[in-house]
Amino acid sequence: MERSIPELKERIRAGRGRLPAHKVIRGGKLVNVMSSEIYPADVAVYGDMIAAVGDVEAYIGPDTQIIDAQGRYLVPGMIDGHIHSECSKLSITSYAKAVVPHGTTSMISGLDEYISVSGLEGLREVLAEVKASPLKVFWGAPYKTPYTVPQSTVAYNFTKETHAQVQQWPECFGVWETVREFIREEDEDTLGAISQAFHNRLPVFGCAPMARGNDLNGYLCAGVRLDHESYDHEEVVEKMRKGMHMLIRESCVTHFLKENIRAVTEVNPAFARRVSFCTDDVTATDILSKGHLDNVVRLAIEAGVDPMTAIQMATINSAEAYRIDHLVGSICPGRIADILFVDDLHKFNIERVMTNGNMVAEDQRLSYDLKAPERSPVLKGALKCAPTTPDTFTYHVGIQNGTAEVLAMDVKGPFVRKRRDVTLKVENGVVLPDPEQDVALVSVLERFGRNGNKSLAFCSGWKLKRGAMASSAAPDDNDLVVMGADPRDMSLAANYLIEQGGGQVVVANGEILEFLPLPVGGIVSDCEPAEMAAQEARIDAAARSLGSDLPNPMMYMFFLPITAIPDYAITDVGPVDYVNLTTFDPILKLTEG
Amino acid sequence: MERSIPELKERIRAGRGRLPAHKVIRGGKLVNVMSSEIYPADVAVYGDMIAAVGDVEAYIGPDTQIIDAQGRYLVPGMIDGHIHSECSKLSITSYAKAVVPHGTTSMISGLDEYISVSGLEGLREVLAEVKASPLKVFWGAPYKTPYTVPQSTVAYNFTKETHAQVQQWPECFGVWETVREFIREEDEDTLGAISQAFHNRLPVFGCAPMARGNDLNGYLCAGVRLDHESYDHEEVVEKMRKGMHMLIRESCVTHFLKENIRAVTEVNPAFARRVSFCTDDVTATDILSKGHLDNVVRLAIEAGVDPMTAIQMATINSAEAYRIDHLVGSICPGRIADILFVDDLHKFNIERVMTNGNMVAEDQRLSYDLKAPERSPVLKGALKCAPTTPDTFTYHVGIQNGTAEVLAMDVKGPFVRKRRDVTLKVENGVVLPDPEQDVALVSVLERFGRNGNKSLAFCSGWKLKRGAMASSAAPDDNDLVVMGADPRDMSLAANYLIEQGGGQVVVANGEILEFLPLPVGGIVSDCEPAEMAAQEARIDAAARSLGSDLPNPMMYMFFLPITAIPDYAITDVGPVDYVNLTTFDPILKLTEG
Repeated sequence: MERSIPELKERIRAGRGRLPAHKVIRGGKLVNVMSSEIYPADVAVYGDMIAAVGDVEAYIGPDTQIIDAQGRYLVPGMIDGHIHSECSKLSITSYAKAVVPHGTTSMISGLDEYISVSGLEGLREVLAEVKASPLKVFWGAPYKTPYTVPQSTVAYNFTKETHAQVQQWPECFGVWETVREFIREEDEDTLGAISQAFHNRLPVFGCAPMARGNDLNGYLCAGVRLDHESYDHEEVVEKMRKGMHMLIRESCVTHFLKENIRAVTEVNPAFARRVSFCTDDVTATDILSKGHLDNVVRLAIEAGVDPMTAIQMATINSAEAYRIDHLVGSICPGRIADILFVDDLHKFNIERVMTNGNMVAEDQRLSYDLKAPERSPVLKGALKCAPTTPDTFTYHVGIQNGTAEVLAMDVKGPFVRKRRDVTLKVENGVVLPDPEQDVALVSVLERFGRNGNKSLAFCSGWKLKRGAMASSAAPDDNDLVVMGADPRDMSLAANYLIEQGGGQVVVANGEILEFLPLPVGGIVSDCEPAEMAAQEARIDAAARSLGSDLPNPMMYMFFLPITAIPDYAITDVGPVDYVNLTTFDPILKLTEG
Repeated sequence: MERSIPELKERIRAGRGRLPAHKVIRGGKLVNVMSSEIYPADVAVYGDMIAAVGDVEAYIGPDTQIIDAQGRYLVPGMIDGHIHSECSKLSITSYAKAVVPHGTTSMISGLDEYISVSGLEGLREVLAEVKASPLKVFWGAPYKTPYTVPQSTVAYNFTKETHAQVQQWPECFGVWETVREFIREEDEDTLGAISQAFHNRLPVFGCAPMARGNDLNGYLCAGVRLDHESYDHEEVVEKMRKGMHMLIRESCVTHFLKENIRAVTEVNPAFARRVSFCTDDVTATDILSKGHLDNVVRLAIEAGVDPMTAIQMATINSAEAYRIDHLVGSICPGRIADILFVDDLHKFNIERVMTNGNMVAEDQRLSYDLKAPERSPVLKGALKCAPTTPDTFTYHVGIQNGTAEVLAMDVKGPFVRKRRDVTLKVENGVVLPDPEQDVALVSVLERFGRNGNKSLAFCSGWKLKRGAMASSAAPDDNDLVVMGADPRDMSLAANYLIEQGGGQVVVANGEILEFLPLPVGGIVSDCEPAEMAAQEARIDAAARSLGSDLPNPMMYMFFLPITAIPDYAITDVGPVDYVNLTTFDPILKLTEG
């Protein structure tokens, strides 16, 4: 964040009332998160800044617009402490349409998936898109890309040298999602990023699920400030006693609030001071049905947190965790004018939203027409993959006929894959997938034109009886993931996405059953959130028509390339053993006969 | 603060227990300021870092030193949130000897008086002295020097260009003491310093006594984060409701704690979260008789604050206000090992002190021999003043004989000077001071060899019957201040200090009554704190022997050049009217006769 001398002069004059306010909000009840008090107070807004709070009559000029708060509570705009908005498959513009009306006015994000598909050039384009949107992004520079061990392929390798450059950008507010293993293994890029962060006075954001004891101590000694992933409240308690700021994650796939908030409601209310919220991964469907941070606040209140404390968790606590409390998180002079008009502190229904000094949403909809920007070729480039053939997805082995004992990755939840040994038939030198035994083929194809890598392995849990599905959106690499019961359908699915320039597809028996286009980087779309929700419903229905009974078959598939999750994963370099951090051969044993 | 990749690796290994701890503290009760809990916990220390807290047996190696805490409370080292240690007339080395045994292990300081007398070269020398001491200084770069309006003379003018350079230094943690008037007047250097601070992600520390309403709003809109000077608790309440961190000042001359703490004890306990402490100006006498931050904690407890909250105010709250909570303020893995061993949380007697991982004090004394460094010529240079004559201090006017009505600066407290009109005799073209009417002469002489400025005016309140006194320590400029009833004694006093290379002196009837040497920059000494206290007692006794009944005649005198205090001051450019920020002519009217 930069402020020139002329800007400072203008701000000082506006603060003193020497320049009249552009807007004055009258008749609201201020939720003062700094003092934990609620009292009537008016607010004067100049440009994107809160100029004064309290009696602001002296700030009214002839052109000042008066906004009648009609007795509503004035709550600071909320901050999502850790979010990959790309996971929603919505562009920043579309994502803002979904979450801003629910009171989320700031988010902390690495925008890392944009980087993985389009490098710094694409990132700069997205940062420009952010500036034109009503949603603020406090960008954390990813500690590195890709996050995988062994290293997979992405469009751009973000290294410690990149940090030396981008940490100077005013949009950079820290180091994003520094995964525990990379610190434990003393990875040079990761430590280089942290070293730069000390130099540049930036906080280091963590990612340390299940870190306890000595392992946690080592992590903290590297200088990580906060964490957003704890599996139970005891883990939260240990991390907080050791000085971390804790974000409680309530995503569309992991619902941690109810368990984690027990650190505050059952163990010690004093922990509340450094607890905040994040949603990490959310879908359009989820936001439209439940809300966003407003829902998280409601859940916290239901769990026994008083409304003031819950609101502080969604606002000032996050701001303090990320050291952006001079900019956002409270309704105070000098802060950015992000203000929510709320009906009732228990129902917590967001009626109107001001961001950056502008009234932008009402009745949970954006109140103006926000257009997505034109995309440059770097973000709308086609998938740089050669077309595939059925043979691409055919598992050849060194025997002609017999059986193969294989290690299938068995999905046990969106982020957990366990070992399942299963015996498959070998015919004509090929290991056959087996729908009867719930064993499908899964492949990841490098799609940035860098090396043409492909991998092939076996998976269980999707119960695919036939067909295939594919996605060019697949965090964190966003290489092309293809899964299926049939190599011909798998090839068709992959080729269709290559032709269309990205998206998700379900095919069966040589036919496209459903296609969800993702034209921006192959990962997100500028469509309306409601349209995305409808498309998601259709694509999951199509996937289920292949036999799957998972809640989100496509999402469970596209998390497969994440190597930071126990016990197995698959990237373009091969199937990965998370425990040993190596690729592995899924063929355990071949028996001729 | 910098951390290289090899340093990070070593820290991670130490945190994980792969490198044995250098020291382990066993058998203490941890005062966990992060969780507001007290429980038994051991602490492993590696180098200057806390490696682990809790069960640390796994961190013990064959060479690990075991420190038995004997059931004492382990409290984080305390942080003085705003201090000009130079005002104590003790060098950093001597000051550390005074305050570290009382539990003050960190201080936030501008070291601005060193800068005013020795520029950046002297500052670098003092920063090196800090590193060799057990006391940490988190340096704030002064928003500018001098602080005076109209501008007086110092050895080095700290400008916005200086900020562009020094804000890059790892020792720089913010912008120091940004005085309200300079923001209100939109001073270019001040706004340049703030603009640089936004760029460099540094907080801006404030100084806004009596700022309220629109004036406070304008100040906050410039981006100031905290303040250390409020005259009553209502002022504290307004500033905190508007989002400031508040330091309560308890100095040797202004005792604000009892009044300001009412914001917490009477108005709203929730304010406690952002309240911390500072001492601003203290003397050796004061520290030896009352203690330092330990005393402030005791005063807060006496005023009704519970001990945990009072300790948080002295530790983590300050650290958060200054954004140094990743380094100090709590006993957590990865933080600097500053640990106090405390007998009882109400008596709050500091028995032993660890700083930077070393046991350095016991029974309120440093437990090792700390030597001051050799000083370079930049810090031990003689006063660059030409010798004076009695005529230097003789007030000539345009009439031969008669009367002069003069505006005398009448001291009403250490920091308050009011107008007093008084009629003096004119004899032989000279206005005579008048001990009977309590009117003395006061002069400030530029002493850096830059321009030879001198001023002369009249003052009241010291009740000097005879003689003179002088000081080369006189914040914030540290020009040479001379006060007296007799121009001959004034000249002798000034010349004696010039000869000696700095200090404070009291003379009468042509004789030196008492001299307090200040050989380092003419402002501080490397003597022991007890020796300084004895010298202070003697010099004030000598000043009182001239007739003064002020509690600290010398200190009241040397605050006279501070122009930021109502209503009058005097610098080398002349007597200053604080309200209009101009020099003024003290001669109101001349009458011949």
